[in-house]
Formats: sequence, structure tokens, C-alpha cells
Amino acid sequence: MLTGIIKDGVHRLDLRVYYEDTDFSGVVYHANYLKYCERARSDFIRLLNINQNQLFGAEDGFAFAIRRMTCEFIKPARFDDVLTVESVPGEMTGVRFFMQQRVVRGADVLFTAEAMAVLIDGQGRPKRIPSALVEAFLSVKS
Amino acid sequence: MLTGIIKDGVHRLDLRVYYEDTDFSGVVYHANYLKYCERARSDFIRLLNINQNQLFGAEDGFAFAIRRMTCEFIKPARFDDVLTVESVPGEMTGVRFFMQQRVVRGADVLFTAEAMAVLIDGQGRPKRIPSALVEAFLSVKS
Amino acid sequence: MLTGIIKDGVHRLDLRVYYEDTDFSGVVYHANYLKYCERARSDFIRLLNINQNQLFGAEDGFAFAIRRMTCEFIKPARFDDVLTVESVPGEMTGVRFFMQQRVVRGADVLFTAEAMAVLIDGQGRPKRIPSALVEAFLSVKS
Amino acid sequence: MLTGIIKDGVHRLDLRVYYEDTDFSGVVYHANYLKYCERARSDFIRLLNINQNQLFGAEDGFAFAIRRMTCEFIKPARFDDVLTVESVPGEMTGVRFFMQQRVVRGADVLFTAEAMAVLIDGQGRPKRIPSALVEAFLSVKS
Repeated sequence: MLTGIIKDGVHRLDLRVYYEDTDFSGVVYHANYLKYCERARSDFIRLLNINQNQLFGAEDGFAFAIRRMTCEFIKPARFDDVLTVESVPGEMTGVRFFMQQRVVRGADVLFTAEAMAVLIDGQGRPKRIPSALVEAFLSVKS
Repeated sequence: MLTGIIKDGVHRLDLRVYYEDTDFSGVVYHANYLKYCERARSDFIRLLNINQNQLFGAEDGFAFAIRRMTCEFIKPARFDDVLTVESVPGEMTGVRFFMQQRVVRGADVLFTAEAMAVLIDGQGRPKRIPSALVEAFLSVKS
Repeated sequence: MLTGIIKDGVHRLDLRVYYEDTDFSGVVYHANYLKYCERARSDFIRLLNINQNQLFGAEDGFAFAIRRMTCEFIKPARFDDVLTVESVPGEMTGVRFFMQQRVVRGADVLFTAEAMAVLIDGQGRPKRIPSALVEAFLSVKS
Repeated sequence: MLTGIIKDGVHRLDLRVYYEDTDFSGVVYHANYLKYCERARSDFIRLLNINQNQLFGAEDGFAFAIRRMTCEFIKPARFDDVLTVESVPGEMTGVRFFMQQRVVRGADVLFTAEAMAVLIDGQGRPKRIPSALVEAFLSVKS
């Protein structure tokens, strides 16, 4: 499914490695794992936000911006591989929001990351995470 | 489905527009339509090549390389859009292979291209398209 | 120089091929030549537009959008290569603007393209090219 | 200069932000800072490796592979900005090699990272960093 699935507290998104993802060393270019994780976060939020309009009401100008990302590149992925991005929401404190992510190929863990994002408004200013959104993420974990 | 489907002579691949695909003008960056088309060609060939090993036998070192591409950028796509890449195989003459491709969003045609590729061997030399591959593509059209 | 130079009617921009530009086939990924051409167009216009504010006055919301691009991929480029993008402005007719571009490595021509762009306003509507801009481009050619 | 300069123990590479680097939020897409840092590392090593053949002799099949990267995204960059990637070599221990990198725009620090790389051979196996390379990096710091 295009936007992945949420099950047992984990969002899972399958994706294919294409030519564009690799470099001449023969494997996936390292920065592209961050793209894969971003696709997964976008899809995760999309799946939660069936009621996004209710959550945010008139204050619709919001976005998550990554502030810190700690990345471990463990094993290489190659052209034609089908990978899965697994995302687990972590702590949420005021304006900060943590997410554990990893990219796996079957049983092999290729990449792990901890992302710390903040919610920002249309002018780029940090914005308190609405309690309804906190609850949506918490509901995934329970 | 991750690799698209072939039906009525057309290969169709659905894909999602993510942050990485857009630029600050608010729409999909023009060169990314070529990436979308390449994903579709890769998937199309993958679907045909269930018997790739039979098709190519020991001569496994082959790849399609794009030699010419004529692109029309008709309407913009935006973040979160679900697009479909439609690919129709065209003429095959010796070493040349033509494909008509377009990117649509529902009934809207956003992008069209005619791609001309050649088959090359591991050393980058043009290589005659094996008759079994010609037949595989022709079987799609009939 | 970061933005290239204009000489004898040609804008020339040097650039380096990095890991990110290549794919696992060992050469520059085809869609990246369109990125190189776009960098050159941006720099070309930047060099012309020392007086951009004068040219456009209050009507500042404008951008060039590519409508058609015909691309020939002639020879491959590789990691570490230094390439030059050469851009020559072509015909301008009302809202349309043509540019011939090619990517060379020394005496080798690797890629050629003819790009057709339109000027659009902030709402994406085609906009007549101001005579001052037409003259700026014509001055390059003479 | 295309490959940057080394001065006072710091490699500095200037680069321009193009359309391709931004996303629809109006600023540089976060993963692209990792591309900028990789360009700088490639150029840094190129500048050191005027004697690369002497350094590595017959064992020429080597590459640096990123194993860990800790990234802080501090302020956004925008289209047309000229950025500078600053790279400072850190500790080298056996097969590991650390580098501090940051992306600045004038006096503003936009991005910082600590990268940990390993030297790998043509088969992807970690490889002891040759003493001549250690010395080349140390000579930059002194």
C-alpha cells in the first residue's frame, strides 16, 4: 500500500531501490536513507491525520521540521532491493517530537536513526504540539 | 503494488509525491519526472523479466541506456499527489527501443515523454535486442 | 567562478561530478543532466539580472518554467569529472523562450538539449517576457 | 575554486543553492546537507591526494564509507544562497576516521555534523588507514 500500514505501534512503508537511489560504488547513496525516513514520516502522519483538519482547525499552517538526526549506516542496500522503513514514535515534550526509524531488508537491519523534530508554524516558529496530535501518536503506541 | 501492473498494453505505476520531489516554487522539480519514468521502465522490465535468465542466458550483462528523451511538461504536480506513470512500448529496431510515457493525476495529463533507449552490454557497447525480449514486449501490446 | 561566465554569446558553468550524481551503472544518472542545465540557466539569468529589479519593477513575481526539453544523451560522464554546461539563448517569441544547452568534458560533447521555457507569474500564468529582458538576452548574443 | 581550499586546518568549499536543493516548504531539503558534506569530503581528499598513488601504491581499491553521522539542522538555507562547507579532520583510530563538518552562510551556522567513516576495500571490508594518509590529514591540522 502506497502510504504504509500501522500495526503494533510501528508504521511500516515498503519501497523499491531504483537507479536514482544508488551511486557508482554500487550501493544506495547514504543521504538517501534520510529521504526514505522522510517518506515514512510523511506517510505515518498522513495515516494519522484522517482528522487533521479537526486536529488543527483554523491553525492549519504547520509542519514538522527535523532539528537533529543521529544516523547509523550498518549494511548497504542495492538496486532492485525492496526495503521497509519502520517508524516508532517516541517522546513528545512541548514542541519536540522524537521518532525511532530503521530501514530493514527482511531480517537485515541496514540503517537506524533517531530523529528529533519540532512543529513549526507558517513563519518557521516553533509551535506547541496540539494535545490532539499527542493523543493520536500515543494511540499508536498503546 | 510496488512494481505496477500491465494491462491492455500499458504498464501503470502509482507513486506518491514527497518533500524530496518538490522545489521552492511549490511544485515537482522538472527533472524528477524523468526519475518517475525511469522507475516505471525498471518496473516494467522487471515484470516482463520473470524469465529474464531464460531470455538472456549466459549473456547476462545488459542494461538499457537512454539515448534520447523528448519531454513535455504540461501541468504541475504537488506534494502529496498520487501520480500514475503510464508506459507503452513502441517500435524496436535492431539496437533501438522506443517507449511512450506519461505521468497523469487522475484524468489530468501532467507530463509526456518519448524515450529512445539502446541495449548495452557490460562494456557500454550497443547490443542487438534479443528476439525473446522483442517478443516479450510485443506480447504486452497484443 | 560560482555562477559561470558569459563570453562570445555563451554562458559557461563548470561543475564537478560527485557521488550523488552517479548511479550503480558507474556513470552520471541521466536525469542529472537536466539538473546541470537548470543550474546553468539559473546562473545565466543571475548574471544578466544585475538589474533585475529595474527590469521587473513592482511585478517581481516571475519565474521561468520549462515546458519542453529535447535531450540527447551522447557519452557518459563519471565520478570526479569536471564538466562544463554551455548555454546559448535562442528565439524569444511573446511568452516563449528557447535555449540551446550542452554538457561537455573538454572537447567531448556528452549531452545536448533544447529547452523551451515560458515566463510565469506568481499564480503560474504565462506572462509576456518584458522587453528589457529580451534586450538583456539579445545583448549576450551580439 | 571548484575543489575548495585548505587553510588553517580547515577545508572550505563554497556552493550555490539551486532549485533542485529546495523543497516546497521554501528551504533546502534536510537530506541535501549530507550531500553538501559529502561533496566537501570528496574535494578535501582530492586536495590531499595529489600523491594518492604514492599513498596507496598497489592497494588502490579503497573508499571511505560513512558509518555514523550526527546532524544538527539549525537554520534554513534558501534558493540562491551561497553556502560554505567547513570540514575539520578529527581523530583517526585504526579503521575509523572522524570529521567535524558545518555549513555556514557568512556568520550564520546552518548545519553541523560529526561524521564517522571507515576505509573499505573494493569488497566492502574495513581496511586499516595507511599511515601516509594519517600523516596527510595530520599535516592539515598542524
